[in-house]
Amino acid sequence: MSQRPRIVIVGAGFGGLSAAEELSRHDVDVILIDRQNHHLFQPLLYQVATAGLSPADIAAPIRSVVKKHPRTQVLLDTVNGIDTAACAVELISGARVPYDALILATGATHSYFGAAWAHRAPGIKTIDDAIKVRRTILLALERAETNRQENMAERAEFLTFVVVGGGPTGVEMAGAIAELTRHAADHDFRYITRKCVRIILVHSGDRLLPAFPPKLSEQALHALEKLGVEVRLGKRVTLIDDDGAVIGDERINASTVIWAAGVKASPAAQWLGLKGGSSDRVQVGEDLTVPGRPEIFVVGDTSSVRDCTGKLVPGIAPAAKQQGVHAARVIAARLTGARHPGPFRYHHGGNLATVGRKCAVVDLGWLQLSGFAAWLLWSVAHVYFLIGFRNRLVVCANWGWNYLTFDRGARLITGTDSGTEMKSLTVSR
Amino acid sequence: MSQRPRIVIVGAGFGGLSAAEELSRHDVDVILIDRQNHHLFQPLLYQVATAGLSPADIAAPIRSVVKKHPRTQVLLDTVNGIDTAACAVELISGARVPYDALILATGATHSYFGAAWAHRAPGIKTIDDAIKVRRTILLALERAETNRQENMAERAEFLTFVVVGGGPTGVEMAGAIAELTRHAADHDFRYITRKCVRIILVHSGDRLLPAFPPKLSEQALHALEKLGVEVRLGKRVTLIDDDGAVIGDERINASTVIWAAGVKASPAAQWLGLKGGSSDRVQVGEDLTVPGRPEIFVVGDTSSVRDCTGKLVPGIAPAAKQQGVHAARVIAARLTGARHPGPFRYHHGGNLATVGRKCAVVDLGWLQLSGFAAWLLWSVAHVYFLIGFRNRLVVCANWGWNYLTFDRGARLITGTDSGTEMKSLTVSR
Repeated sequence: MSQRPRIVIVGAGFGGLSAAEELSRHDVDVILIDRQNHHLFQPLLYQVATAGLSPADIAAPIRSVVKKHPRTQVLLDTVNGIDTAACAVELISGARVPYDALILATGATHSYFGAAWAHRAPGIKTIDDAIKVRRTILLALERAETNRQENMAERAEFLTFVVVGGGPTGVEMAGAIAELTRHAADHDFRYITRKCVRIILVHSGDRLLPAFPPKLSEQALHALEKLGVEVRLGKRVTLIDDDGAVIGDERINASTVIWAAGVKASPAAQWLGLKGGSSDRVQVGEDLTVPGRPEIFVVGDTSSVRDCTGKLVPGIAPAAKQQGVHAARVIAARLTGARHPGPFRYHHGGNLATVGRKCAVVDLGWLQLSGFAAWLLWSVAHVYFLIGFRNRLVVCANWGWNYLTFDRGARLITGTDSGTEMKSLTVSR
Repeated sequence: MSQRPRIVIVGAGFGGLSAAEELSRHDVDVILIDRQNHHLFQPLLYQVATAGLSPADIAAPIRSVVKKHPRTQVLLDTVNGIDTAACAVELISGARVPYDALILATGATHSYFGAAWAHRAPGIKTIDDAIKVRRTILLALERAETNRQENMAERAEFLTFVVVGGGPTGVEMAGAIAELTRHAADHDFRYITRKCVRIILVHSGDRLLPAFPPKLSEQALHALEKLGVEVRLGKRVTLIDDDGAVIGDERINASTVIWAAGVKASPAAQWLGLKGGSSDRVQVGEDLTVPGRPEIFVVGDTSSVRDCTGKLVPGIAPAAKQQGVHAARVIAARLTGARHPGPFRYHHGGNLATVGRKCAVVDLGWLQLSGFAAWLLWSVAHVYFLIGFRNRLVVCANWGWNYLTFDRGARLITGTDSGTEMKSLTVSR
């Protein structure tokens, strides 16, 4: 068997994959473990949830991503725990995978702050989540269409969409639902008009997109309002139930409620026997290792780190990538004598969010843009960073096609027998 | 309300959609009921099941297919029964839809001839079926890869694929699995070689593709054997259980068993209170109506019909389309005074089946082809008949890309938490 050092990476998101890429240049064995067989380009997942793209457009099998690296092995499995004393990862299948160094890059999941709202207000983190949300939205429209004569209150419920959370995901979801329902009203359905559709975006803060400069928050707000979205700032959702949501003390009946408000880290802290910090994130040092465990690195949304300038690193894809590369370089320096990269320093490229199909807000620090020019920049950036050449081509073709014709090719209801989900409806002459 | 005659069509497959298209030219109201929101191009479903295409590539939302027809209304619902005395369709939602004429085009489903094998040997009729089969095949490969050292018998089980049925679907599935596993062995997996994979195609008849001339059956057999498929002719599957299948009296351990052997009609006969004929098909006359019920038409795989030349019409897409158009024309003649089309006459265009990615067999009657030229003809025919311009483009691009690079973009495992499905496996140093 090989005598090369073995690096185990858990999670094939942006952090894990970039660490694997970097390590493939060194003489080490890499084992990349993920519970899915695909890397997912999460920033575009909202487009799957709103029927703009198909799952395969934004996901690539991990094996094909790393197939050019002979010393990288992929394991489809789920982590059960970590035996830090014996330096081994324990998997649900019963396997134990020993490591010389370990990189945890397991990302984040939704947090409902303790409330049991998950079944009623799905979030969007995985392909299955996105397909579920897509089904919910499309079925609501179908029900509204067939329910046009009987029960007007129920019909209004089907046509009301509540999005909770005014960060980039919430803003993008609200904008995309507005575009989807406008198109559905104008082209696909006979009895749904733009006027009957209500989209409400709830945000607890006093402005949308808090990570952006206030001017851009303002512009995102205007762009959403122009699309017909009602934005409720400074309001919290206090209850979500079968009928809809309570926003502050106002009850909104809505069949679709989407959660984009809070995330918490994956259970990495628990595996390590640590008390997680804010949102269960693992506090790591400037070299991205766990205090007292120099062989264990935590990167991306699972960790909480201040870089060597004292800046708190944000939970976004470029940050995860930079951390993955950094952890890999520290490991390579230790195990193969490569040059040590020094303490981690985060380079902030910028913040981008899109609002519908021809408007975005972009903050590059030295440049702030909104509107169509920002949307173009956003598109180029996203397509450029999509993993896999084929996906880039398909996404370009799909976007071009959508833009020209607004024909949503991915508008399928799958995953359940839709007919049996239908509530009572009657068609009479 | 409208005083136009109302035609209700149940099923938006090839038969139902072509009837709706034809009726859109006449002054009648059409209600098109389906329990899915999409029309599915079933002849290419095996490509979704083997990760060559994505679901959205071969499915189109029914609403967008008929959106140019203002008098056509789409209902997403499931039929519960038909009140033939009152001329109304009863839906699961509780709705009753009265009709002046009714076209039943509800297709067929798998038939296991009474055995309880459905959970163990899925067939391929819907997108959810295809995604399930894709997950089964891809997970089997993942398990074989991780299980390489522990239990060789179990590993062999993961790498054995049994396809039951030697008609076009079975032949196409076996060929596509062969191509998929070859590529996986050569490129994606480290420890799976072509030699460890076993694909067995079982057929009870004495030659594959019984609807084709014997020479083409022979050529399909050779093409499959060249791809490494073991073809068992004149054998029946007598048992399917957790370990695999019994073929004749030989037990084959296999984690993947796929059913392409038998279909039966949807419960239309039951709705009409009739005793269905062979495979539960409804016997209809030369005008495609149910005897004694001139207002009820049954078309496509749900019906059994001899055309006016005495030929038994086969259960394939072109036949369903021709029947749909014919039923629509008879109705139009009766209700709007259009010219009566006379008794139904089936025009047989030909039979096509593909074997892997560069071979097909084509029988046009006056022309019989096999090999690459036949594959090209098959591709052109299938892309031409795909509904929706965008889908044609995407399928062309995907096929071109697959053909050049063999990078399967749709190779995703979705629909379940894959990790927890893994059987025991161990990775040691």
